[in-house]
Amino acid sequence: MQENGTITAAILVIGDEILSGRTQDTNTNYIARFLGAMGIDLRECRVVPDAEGEIVAALNALRARYTYVFTTGGIGPTHDDITADAVAKAFGVGIDYHPEAMALMAARYKNPDDFNEMRKRMARIPDTASLIKNSVSTAPGFQIGNVFVMAGVPMVMKAMLEELSSRLERGAIVHVATVEAHLPEGQIAAALAQIQSSHKTVSVGSYPFYREGGPGTQLVVRGRDAQQVEAAAGEIEAAVRFEGVEPLRI
Amino acid sequence: MQENGTITAAILVIGDEILSGRTQDTNTNYIARFLGAMGIDLRECRVVPDAEGEIVAALNALRARYTYVFTTGGIGPTHDDITADAVAKAFGVGIDYHPEAMALMAARYKNPDDFNEMRKRMARIPDTASLIKNSVSTAPGFQIGNVFVMAGVPMVMKAMLEELSSRLERGAIVHVATVEAHLPEGQIAAALAQIQSSHKTVSVGSYPFYREGGPGTQLVVRGRDAQQVEAAAGEIEAAVRFEGVEPLRI
Repeated sequence: MQENGTITAAILVIGDEILSGRTQDTNTNYIARFLGAMGIDLRECRVVPDAEGEIVAALNALRARYTYVFTTGGIGPTHDDITADAVAKAFGVGIDYHPEAMALMAARYKNPDDFNEMRKRMARIPDTASLIKNSVSTAPGFQIGNVFVMAGVPMVMKAMLEELSSRLERGAIVHVATVEAHLPEGQIAAALAQIQSSHKTVSVGSYPFYREGGPGTQLVVRGRDAQQVEAAAGEIEAAVRFEGVEPLRI
Repeated sequence: MQENGTITAAILVIGDEILSGRTQDTNTNYIARFLGAMGIDLRECRVVPDAEGEIVAALNALRARYTYVFTTGGIGPTHDDITADAVAKAFGVGIDYHPEAMALMAARYKNPDDFNEMRKRMARIPDTASLIKNSVSTAPGFQIGNVFVMAGVPMVMKAMLEELSSRLERGAIVHVATVEAHLPEGQIAAALAQIQSSHKTVSVGSYPFYREGGPGTQLVVRGRDAQQVEAAAGEIEAAVRFEGVEPLRI
């Protein structure tokens, strides 16, 4: 999967609340778009529970395979926040109170008693990791090797992603052209297959939808060569017109 | 992970459109809740691209480990719909046009020419699999072994899930009690840890939120023993009141 020069990524979502259905994950979509804008290919996502063995196994599988891994969740002050310990274990390093994290967080509490033992847990950072600061809740995430450990609360995660983005290598941007056609995808599938096979440098995806007024399909061309993307999209438009439908570029 | 009598599940989301950020996945959350209502524990989710090797590897890892695996996506008529072939490969079986699927689909098209070669691809089903019918788009999903292969379009996926649900073994329901407290989770974290450690049969989760009017936390107790869940939730309410805040059961 690590093609020449392609920068790849995986997301590891850590949290019982996603698996129970209590919480609809939106971080994955946000991170996917954020990485896409930097030319980084998101290749895999996993969701695992708040269980050390599960986190360690998934993280070690993903970090060996992709340029970057982004985790969300499990870095708060409560007993079920075990991500930092699990990441330390995955990397085979120790974990301790990080002086800078302690200082950042201590400065946040006017009453020193409020910086209690549980809150201090959020300053426990695996050895050799560097902090990912966040302007929303103060408690930092961290980077260790090619792994970026972020909060699960979307507002905090977004602040951390912004903060860490300068550390990421950028790739060539993927250009996207989307043609919407008010016809069922089965009617144009043969033409699409032909267009895909004659444009090997792009990927052609077909995403049906059902709306009032009948079925339709969004035909999405993605690729790093803008001319090839445009050429394939033009052929798709022609194929849609051939079916007597006016395509819409969206 | 396969505790005595616990019925477990994983979800495998197949689709470039989730990884590119084009589409926000909502199927996982819907399936999680659907399974929860049947007493089935969702333990893991993965998202992989429309790439045969990726689908095969993920499916074989998941089906070996969990009672059930539910896949979404990649069973339409277009060239990028490769799930059925990948599943056949994962199981080491052949794949062919399924007579009943062919009949169902042929009946849908008034003009026989509309049932074209690409649409017939949707009737290709791995050997030994049984169909999962759907009332929305006709094209069926299928079950092979402990794997249920469903469409990615949410409306179609929901119809298939309903259709297949009678085949699933039900587990004991997980009872849930949620206490909302308008205080930051760090203020109650020590009490929560103590409550968790004295109620081993339940899991206590803490989910902070930020709203106008200040931070708050939802404290969620889950467990199969309703009395234990209630006992832990009662102790959490007492701990919140001890901080001078009136808890809210939601």
